[in-house]
Amino acid sequence: MKNFADALVRAIAEKNNPTVMGLDPRLEYIPEHIIEKANLNFDDPETSTAQAILMFNKELIDAVQDIVPAIKPQFAYYEMYGIEGLRALKATIDYAKSKGMLVIADAKRNDIGTTATAYAAGIIGQTTIIDGSTHEMIGADAVTVNGYLGIDGIKPFTDVCRESGKGIFALVRTSNPSAVDLQDLELSDGRKVYEAMAQKVEEWGVDCIGDEGFSSVGAVVGATWPEQAVAIRKLMPHAMILVPGYGAQGAGPDQAVASFTEDGRGSIVNASRSLMCAWMKRDDLAPEDFAKATRDEAINMKNKLNAALKDRKYV
Amino acid sequence: MKNFADALVRAIAEKNNPTVMGLDPRLEYIPEHIIEKANLNFDDPETSTAQAILMFNKELIDAVQDIVPAIKPQFAYYEMYGIEGLRALKATIDYAKSKGMLVIADAKRNDIGTTATAYAAGIIGQTTIIDGSTHEMIGADAVTVNGYLGIDGIKPFTDVCRESGKGIFALVRTSNPSAVDLQDLELSDGRKVYEAMAQKVEEWGVDCIGDEGFSSVGAVVGATWPEQAVAIRKLMPHAMILVPGYGAQGAGPDQAVASFTEDGRGSIVNASRSLMCAWMKRDDLAPEDFAKATRDEAINMKNKLNAALKDRKYV
Repeated sequence: MKNFADALVRAIAEKNNPTVMGLDPRLEYIPEHIIEKANLNFDDPETSTAQAILMFNKELIDAVQDIVPAIKPQFAYYEMYGIEGLRALKATIDYAKSKGMLVIADAKRNDIGTTATAYAAGIIGQTTIIDGSTHEMIGADAVTVNGYLGIDGIKPFTDVCRESGKGIFALVRTSNPSAVDLQDLELSDGRKVYEAMAQKVEEWGVDCIGDEGFSSVGAVVGATWPEQAVAIRKLMPHAMILVPGYGAQGAGPDQAVASFTEDGRGSIVNASRSLMCAWMKRDDLAPEDFAKATRDEAINMKNKLNAALKDRKYV
Repeated sequence: MKNFADALVRAIAEKNNPTVMGLDPRLEYIPEHIIEKANLNFDDPETSTAQAILMFNKELIDAVQDIVPAIKPQFAYYEMYGIEGLRALKATIDYAKSKGMLVIADAKRNDIGTTATAYAAGIIGQTTIIDGSTHEMIGADAVTVNGYLGIDGIKPFTDVCRESGKGIFALVRTSNPSAVDLQDLELSDGRKVYEAMAQKVEEWGVDCIGDEGFSSVGAVVGATWPEQAVAIRKLMPHAMILVPGYGAQGAGPDQAVASFTEDGRGSIVNASRSLMCAWMKRDDLAPEDFAKATRDEAINMKNKLNAALKDRKYV
C-alpha cells in the first residue's frame, strides 16, 4: 500500500459505503450454536472461547466483505481473553485482509520515543527477531493512538505511515459523555483542548497526504458531537476522520456525517454493536442466520449514511 | 491485597527503596550468551526471542528481588514480539509475583465504558470465559492509564481498584520533551492542562485511599520536570506517583524525588535502561555476571534517592 488514506478513500468510494464494522466481540453477542460448536471442538475452555469469537467474526466478515470496506477490531476485547484471545485477533485480521478489507486496529496506544516505536512496529510495522528475520506481528493497516504525550509519541507512528503506507487515527473528540472532562476545557487563547489537538493532528499529518487529498494521519471524532465535528473538520481539512458513536451509542446518520468534507468524503463511520448484535432484534431469522441480520443492517446503515450525505443537517 | 497504595507504600518502606525496575527488554540489551542459549534450545525463532527475554528478565528479578519492591514491564516491548512475546510478559509477571514483588503494568490503556471494562478485566481484573470460569489473564497489581477520555474511561478501572485492591497510574505529566505540546497549554482559568488532569486524578481517587493515606488511583509525573512535580504533589496530596525519566532519560536523584510528600513517601521512581543495561558499562564484569551490574546499580540508585530525600533540592 502506498498511502493508507488513498486506499481507504478509494475503498469507500468503490463500495459506496463509508462504514467500518467494529469487531468488539463479547461472548454474550455470540449465538448459542457457535458457543456449543466451540465447546465441542476444543478441549480447553480458553481455546474454545477464542475459537467462538473467531468463528463469529469470520461469518460477519463473510457477510459484509463485498459491501463494507474495513473492519475495526477493538483490542481490549481480545486482550481480555489472554493469549488465545490475541490469536483470535490476529486470525480475524488476517481473514479480513484475505477478503480485501482494510483493518483499523483500535488500540489507542500511546507512549514516548523507543516505546512508541515498539508499539508501531508491533501493530502496523515489522519487528526484527532473534535470527534477524522481520515479521508483521499484527499487520493492521492503521491504528488508533492517543496524542496526550505530544509529537514524541506520534512521530514513531507517522514514520511508519510515511515509509510503509500505513495510517493512524489520533483521539481528538471522543464519543463518550465525559469527553468534556478534559477535551472541552477552554484554553487561554479561546480554543478548547480538543481544538488544539485537532490542529496538532493536521500539523502532524502534512507529510502523509495522498493523491486523494487526505492524510494518513487521521483523527477520531465522535458522532455524538455533530456541531463540534463540523468545526473540527475545518481545523483538519486533510485528516481522515474515524467516527465512533453511531447506533448503540446514540448518534444517528445525520450526526454521523457531520465531519465529512463538503464533497462527502474523508470520514468513515464505525458501528460495532448495532452490526454485531443485529441478529438479536430479528425474530424472523433463525440464530444460525445471524450474519444475514448483520448484512441487512449494514445495507440499512449504508443507505442511511448516503441519504444523510445528500441532505446534510450539520454543515 | 486490600489496597494497592498501602501495599506499595509498605513494600517501599520495608525495602527502604522507592524504586521500580522497568523491564522494557530489547534484544540488543540482552547479553550474547543468553541469545545463544535461547537459539540453541528452541526450534523456532519467535519462541527463542521470547525465551531470551524471559531468561534475561528472570535473572534481573532474581538479582534485585530482595532490594527493589516492584517491576514495571512496558507492554509495547512484549507486544512487538507477538504471541510469544506476550507469553514472556505473563511469565515475567508471574515470576516477579512469586518473588514477592509488586507488578505495575505499563500499558497506558484508555477507552470508554465497556471497552475500558474489558481492558481492566484483562490487566488487573478477571475475565469470565466460555465455561463460566474466571481467569486472571495478566494479573498485574496496577496499570498505567491515559485519562484524555475523562471519567467514563477511568471508572471501570477504579471499580476494580476498589473491589479487588488494585491500582492505576493516570498520565498527568509525562517525562518527554513534547509533553509540552498538549499538557502545558494554558487554560482560561490560568491552570495548565496537566494541572487540570492532576485535580481530576485526585478527585477520581477519593474512594481508594488506604490506611497509609495514599490513593490507589495514582499518577505518572516525569522526573524531568521537578518544579512542576512539586506543584503537582500539592494538587494531588493523596495520589501515589509513578516517576519515569530517571537515568537514561536525563533526570537525576534530586529531580526524581521532587514529587515525594514532605515525609518522603508516596512516590516511586522508575529506572529501565539504567538498570537493565548496567552491565554494558562494566568492563570489570563478565557478561555472564550482567545481573550483578543491575544489582549494584539498584543499590547505587537506592542510596542516591535516599540521600536526595534527606536533602531536598525541590520543595
